[in-house]
Amino acid sequence: MKVVRPEEISPSSVEMNGAKVDGATIRWLIKDSDGAKNFAMRYFELEKDAVIPIHTHPWEHEVFVLEGKVLITEGDESTEAGPNTAIFVRPDQPHSYKNIGEGRLKFLCLIPYKGG
Amino acid sequence: MKVVRPEEISPSSVEMNGAKVDGATIRWLIKDSDGAKNFAMRYFELEKDAVIPIHTHPWEHEVFVLEGKVLITEGDESTEAGPNTAIFVRPDQPHSYKNIGEGRLKFLCLIPYKGG
Repeated sequence: MKVVRPEEISPSSVEMNGAKVDGATIRWLIKDSDGAKNFAMRYFELEKDAVIPIHTHPWEHEVFVLEGKVLITEGDESTEAGPNTAIFVRPDQPHSYKNIGEGRLKFLCLIPYKGG
Repeated sequence: MKVVRPEEISPSSVEMNGAKVDGATIRWLIKDSDGAKNFAMRYFELEKDAVIPIHTHPWEHEVFVLEGKVLITEGDESTEAGPNTAIFVRPDQPHSYKNIGEGRLKFLCLIPYKGG
């Protein structure tokens, strides 16, 4: 059994196409080196107005919003979501995340190790 | 994209060995019929003192506690965890969950579709 709280892990910067995403951090809560061979649980924090810009990859996301307010886009769709909301982002769809709340945005984002 | 909040889904009872677990409900937030072919996100609520008894299966759990206080056992280990805690329960380990808080216990529990 592994038990961990986000604050026990040092945040890493989020990188996209080799560039750091301003105001966004990631913590890997549960990952393959813990024995989790099928999927990983990551924890994201975005500062006010921070954006993870549009990107596409062949694996899905399973997101759960913990705190704050997010605007998620997937292809032509967009939705605003607050705490206690689950979001499934399909594989191979361009998608982005923006913190549109007044404070920090915190969400879980899980990904498969063998998807796509 | 699928967007859903737990309260939009009717809770189902939790069954184990054909018997209903008293005081425990499950909601499947993201599942294979949504296009999630690799793993599923489920949402559990346990009333005060409710217990999901010891059971074993060949797939892992990735748990995130949202509200309340849980006692989780895995094999000879046990741990108490409150909100904002991630727990990895290894495959093939006997494990159980007990609500040891004063109110409802709410947690996410994700499982692979192809584990074990």
